[in-house]
Amino acid sequence: MTLTRLHDPQSRSFASDNYAGAHPAVLAAIAAANDGHQPAYGEDVYTRRLQEVIRAHFGARAEVFPVFNGTGANVIALTAVLPRWGAVIAPDTAHIHTDEAGAPERVTGLKLLTVPSADGKLTPELVAREAWGWGDEHRPQPLAVSITQTTERGTLYTPDEIRAVADYAHAHGMAVHLDGARIWNAAAALGVPLREFTTDAGVDVLSLGGTKNGLLGAEAVVVLDPDRAAGLTYLRKLGMQLASKMRFLSAQLLALFDDDLGLRNAAHANAMTARLRAALAAGIADGRLPGLRFTQDSPANAIFAVLPEGMADRLRRRVHFYDWDAARREVRWMTAWDTTPEDVDRFVAIIFDEFGSSPPSVKPRL
Amino acid sequence: MTLTRLHDPQSRSFASDNYAGAHPAVLAAIAAANDGHQPAYGEDVYTRRLQEVIRAHFGARAEVFPVFNGTGANVIALTAVLPRWGAVIAPDTAHIHTDEAGAPERVTGLKLLTVPSADGKLTPELVAREAWGWGDEHRPQPLAVSITQTTERGTLYTPDEIRAVADYAHAHGMAVHLDGARIWNAAAALGVPLREFTTDAGVDVLSLGGTKNGLLGAEAVVVLDPDRAAGLTYLRKLGMQLASKMRFLSAQLLALFDDDLGLRNAAHANAMTARLRAALAAGIADGRLPGLRFTQDSPANAIFAVLPEGMADRLRRRVHFYDWDAARREVRWMTAWDTTPEDVDRFVAIIFDEFGSSPPSVKPRL
Amino acid sequence: MTLTRLHDPQSRSFASDNYAGAHPAVLAAIAAANDGHQPAYGEDVYTRRLQEVIRAHFGARAEVFPVFNGTGANVIALTAVLPRWGAVIAPDTAHIHTDEAGAPERVTGLKLLTVPSADGKLTPELVAREAWGWGDEHRPQPLAVSITQTTERGTLYTPDEIRAVADYAHAHGMAVHLDGARIWNAAAALGVPLREFTTDAGVDVLSLGGTKNGLLGAEAVVVLDPDRAAGLTYLRKLGMQLASKMRFLSAQLLALFDDDLGLRNAAHANAMTARLRAALAAGIADGRLPGLRFTQDSPANAIFAVLPEGMADRLRRRVHFYDWDAARREVRWMTAWDTTPEDVDRFVAIIFDEFGSSPPSVKPRL
Amino acid sequence: MTLTRLHDPQSRSFASDNYAGAHPAVLAAIAAANDGHQPAYGEDVYTRRLQEVIRAHFGARAEVFPVFNGTGANVIALTAVLPRWGAVIAPDTAHIHTDEAGAPERVTGLKLLTVPSADGKLTPELVAREAWGWGDEHRPQPLAVSITQTTERGTLYTPDEIRAVADYAHAHGMAVHLDGARIWNAAAALGVPLREFTTDAGVDVLSLGGTKNGLLGAEAVVVLDPDRAAGLTYLRKLGMQLASKMRFLSAQLLALFDDDLGLRNAAHANAMTARLRAALAAGIADGRLPGLRFTQDSPANAIFAVLPEGMADRLRRRVHFYDWDAARREVRWMTAWDTTPEDVDRFVAIIFDEFGSSPPSVKPRL
Repeated sequence: MTLTRLHDPQSRSFASDNYAGAHPAVLAAIAAANDGHQPAYGEDVYTRRLQEVIRAHFGARAEVFPVFNGTGANVIALTAVLPRWGAVIAPDTAHIHTDEAGAPERVTGLKLLTVPSADGKLTPELVAREAWGWGDEHRPQPLAVSITQTTERGTLYTPDEIRAVADYAHAHGMAVHLDGARIWNAAAALGVPLREFTTDAGVDVLSLGGTKNGLLGAEAVVVLDPDRAAGLTYLRKLGMQLASKMRFLSAQLLALFDDDLGLRNAAHANAMTARLRAALAAGIADGRLPGLRFTQDSPANAIFAVLPEGMADRLRRRVHFYDWDAARREVRWMTAWDTTPEDVDRFVAIIFDEFGSSPPSVKPRL
Repeated sequence: MTLTRLHDPQSRSFASDNYAGAHPAVLAAIAAANDGHQPAYGEDVYTRRLQEVIRAHFGARAEVFPVFNGTGANVIALTAVLPRWGAVIAPDTAHIHTDEAGAPERVTGLKLLTVPSADGKLTPELVAREAWGWGDEHRPQPLAVSITQTTERGTLYTPDEIRAVADYAHAHGMAVHLDGARIWNAAAALGVPLREFTTDAGVDVLSLGGTKNGLLGAEAVVVLDPDRAAGLTYLRKLGMQLASKMRFLSAQLLALFDDDLGLRNAAHANAMTARLRAALAAGIADGRLPGLRFTQDSPANAIFAVLPEGMADRLRRRVHFYDWDAARREVRWMTAWDTTPEDVDRFVAIIFDEFGSSPPSVKPRL
Repeated sequence: MTLTRLHDPQSRSFASDNYAGAHPAVLAAIAAANDGHQPAYGEDVYTRRLQEVIRAHFGARAEVFPVFNGTGANVIALTAVLPRWGAVIAPDTAHIHTDEAGAPERVTGLKLLTVPSADGKLTPELVAREAWGWGDEHRPQPLAVSITQTTERGTLYTPDEIRAVADYAHAHGMAVHLDGARIWNAAAALGVPLREFTTDAGVDVLSLGGTKNGLLGAEAVVVLDPDRAAGLTYLRKLGMQLASKMRFLSAQLLALFDDDLGLRNAAHANAMTARLRAALAAGIADGRLPGLRFTQDSPANAIFAVLPEGMADRLRRRVHFYDWDAARREVRWMTAWDTTPEDVDRFVAIIFDEFGSSPPSVKPRL
Repeated sequence: MTLTRLHDPQSRSFASDNYAGAHPAVLAAIAAANDGHQPAYGEDVYTRRLQEVIRAHFGARAEVFPVFNGTGANVIALTAVLPRWGAVIAPDTAHIHTDEAGAPERVTGLKLLTVPSADGKLTPELVAREAWGWGDEHRPQPLAVSITQTTERGTLYTPDEIRAVADYAHAHGMAVHLDGARIWNAAAALGVPLREFTTDAGVDVLSLGGTKNGLLGAEAVVVLDPDRAAGLTYLRKLGMQLASKMRFLSAQLLALFDDDLGLRNAAHANAMTARLRAALAAGIADGRLPGLRFTQDSPANAIFAVLPEGMADRLRRRVHFYDWDAARREVRWMTAWDTTPEDVDRFVAIIFDEFGSSPPSVKPRL
């Protein structure tokens, strides 16, 4: 039975990059790490190798702690940079605020101080709105800033923008966390090494994503400035994120760095979003998609768009995707490492069809 | 690089069943579930199928919630059966007390009320020692009992023994949790269906193990009596144990039930322990292993033994395993699904050798 | 030494109602409850009597749990109406969000979902902004609404306004908490019984204030709908708010209900604020206080005002009070049960003096 | 009504020292601190004075943080000396383990590692049983030791005994907490300054009791070694133990140090226990109290005794006190600052009467 497929391996949606499966190279990496005994809980050779690879990419002081999922990475990373009385300044779009069910608050007592952000990004000015009250025991103490790259709104910080936030944070005694669930899409979009917009931009601790970029399931906390983060070993265990057979998490993460698989996967996903957006932009420009409007830039692998009344549900009968804000008729379309140009073109055709039009005859190039 | 093995696939130790890798059928199950898109967070077909399989094995009311690891399963399961003021009665050998770094206390505020247990088992009499004080607001309220099967000391409850604890617990308004990290070894040793010593014996919620029995990494909370457990969906997410690509956890768990893989793996591991124990018992009987003494029965896949001064370290230079209680010179030897008879015989030979003797010429049959 | 005063008993500021001491009748009540032995932890006759008095005022189903302070009352009350996965919708001005140092998050894992509110009040429309996502395990589940009466901005809900919020909340499965740190000021300002804007308006659980209205230090959680709140006895103890000599908390709270002391204290404080505001309004009207502007209504015992640059610091050299929002030059002036008309007039004179003018010759009547 | 007594001011029991009320000098101290305005939250002159007094008694580095109750003091004190992954070694009799409802675990995630102690005391040998496993991420990290003086079993550490525990703890990197809910009884029994068995014996942080020794309700965390405790200001607020009108807590605590009130109260309570014990010892010696047996020494204000079957309930019909361990027929009798010699003699007479005998004609001297 286990060898029997229960699903159609050709089906692909535009719902989320975590609807995709694992890249074949990732399964191969797991198989390579299999067989025989290896010490549990991170004492294995694959985790040791991962540590070296992470240092090569993020700097000699970096320390990596593989974990199971993004919520785990975020909560542990933030806890490591905060005393018990610390609070985190984050945009109100942050995954830690909107999509982690209150785990930061419940698991570790973190207080979030959120600021409204239309595009999902923070600036020093936005941080400043909640960056006050140090020493006042009544106020949760703002001692960390959390940004997401690429953001939950599909947007992108430049390295300079991250540096500006980090400089502001550090000048005010706050640590900087970067939620990198889609960090590979950012690296691909920016065309710079990971280090340039993390370690070198002043990020202190990082949630390094993997699952959304072709892994079975693996993320990591990467400490970039060990002077600002304490007790990771214990906090990972306390956070119930310590894998016994850690070699398999580490092998997956290693696969991302091997032969640039992580970058290639992300660049492909980004390109598929660009292809989708270009086709729709053409339709908007020539009036064949009336009422469709983009609400955010799409530098990476997500498109946010407003649709005419009823259109989202009509499209969804044919292709799966999510409403972002149903009240505003805003939807999110995401591409993944395995989205094909044909998937995109088929979706474009469906959209034009539902708008009562036909898609552009000349396809945008991949 | 990822395709390059960094370790010797033939090396095997007697340290822990989580030193072993994944069974080939498990990798095959993952590959079968791969490719194409599937809804994230448990809305996939593999998780749906798992739900059916779990009901077939544990009863029509059973509900399964795949999670990442055993600590996650235990903490979420216990939280689901307890109000905020509830406490758990457990033996002082319980993994939740000794090896989870305080996660039950820190993640969810659980109070553990432990009772000393030499063999890792609870009885109604032992439970009774802490089962009092209901209604007294000063005392943590004992509202759950947690047992482990097989225990952390390698021992085994009969179905009747579990039923006795469960009857006592229920008669006093307490729920029953079973930490089944090694539940397959118990089923194989008892020779009865899983259901007979869980659902039918009065267990209310179960941590269903997988990782120690040949999976890459997957466990599950299984609710057996939904009237006693609330909010699992939310608690799993809050406990940071919700996998996005859950199909891969579910596929692994399904593999255990397919063609009795879980039972076969566990029966093999148990047999390897029996082989090791028989050989050593013979050496003890005929005086060739002076000072070696078993401290627990070994119905499943663990041997606990006391060694002469210095012997553990001498053996460990040649084969990896753990001290259990260094002060008492007590060690633990574990076998896994992939331990071979040759591994056992080699270890036996090493032991006899270090004792200045030679192993039995006639090997015990597998 | 203890009998030696270390402070000037005539000094009074406009900083906060908790700068005031205890009303003589409160000390008398404590003395009456003193001497001899009484059972600890609430089994005493004063707590029993308080229970009767609370039922007389709040309805036959009401249950009272005296606690030490407002943060304790709020956190325990909210915890009692929420499962572990519950979140609280509150205005961003709420004391539980701004002034409790993150205790709701850290002590009990509460997630706060805040909505911006200029006047400190919620409406069904404001609640609706965060009242969504039930059943979605990723989103903190909005299962309670918390309002403050009078608000942290000195404003007041009518009973109908509270009922509208409560009806909306209940219609969406949410419980209603009222932070009544200044509930007596509200009752005095509204001129209606406490019950009319609590029990009868749909409030489920209440933080009943006392300390800000003339007590030494005592507050209470009052459960108005016991069907919506569970485990108060245990939660109070777990929240470290169970007093051993509870008779003294209960005696203080009883004093508020005796001979309408609570109402009289609050009405007096409100009148002193009215006196202050009237004098300043006159100065604004006739141009003698240029740049002074009220930012909120003052139905109770607080005035919020914007001052010209530098004025707050100049005034503060002579009378103590707090900035509310230094960036906007907004200050808060509060009166207490012990503020005298002379205190007000002296402060008015100082304000006019610093503005280079003289105060109105005809004083507003108390 | 508030001025009407609801209880008999002459009634006194042997149930607990927290059944007693407040000493008149304490009410006088509160009255002296009353009237006029004082800054809230500890900026008042009485708290400032308390700081000086504490330094005079505990050493120049001591810092005092008044709180509401003992559970609050203990939890905050322990949290201040522990990282999030720290655990506390305590005897299984410790109040933090048996009588705080799990608040240490739930409020702050503390893990308690308990060791059995017949007399309520720890020794280096007992501490050693749980003092191991540092650096092992699976084991809660033992980083603090908590002792109680006088203990929950009524026994007393000598300064040297405390120093031995503290030296052991410090040598192993652990901080030392002393639960001093009855520290005054210890000081009175030992006849040495508080400092001699706290600061000078190596205690790092102290829960300074007050309520059980004649206060209305006030305790304090006293940090003796500021290098070992961090964030007290924030932790007190987060622990919901920050009083707004703190002057009244501080005034109570000051009263204990004024004219040796704390020592005198405690010495009196101790003497009343001695009187009770002497009378009963005489009855035991001459065979008139068959079956009555003391189970602990009584150096301070508690007697633990085993009674013949049914005797506890018969006595309790006439005088209130608590079972300690009903299964063993063990009871606890406590005296308080306000227990009179006549109270003791009456209780003695009742005991002899229920044993069918008559009390000694010559009373023990007070």
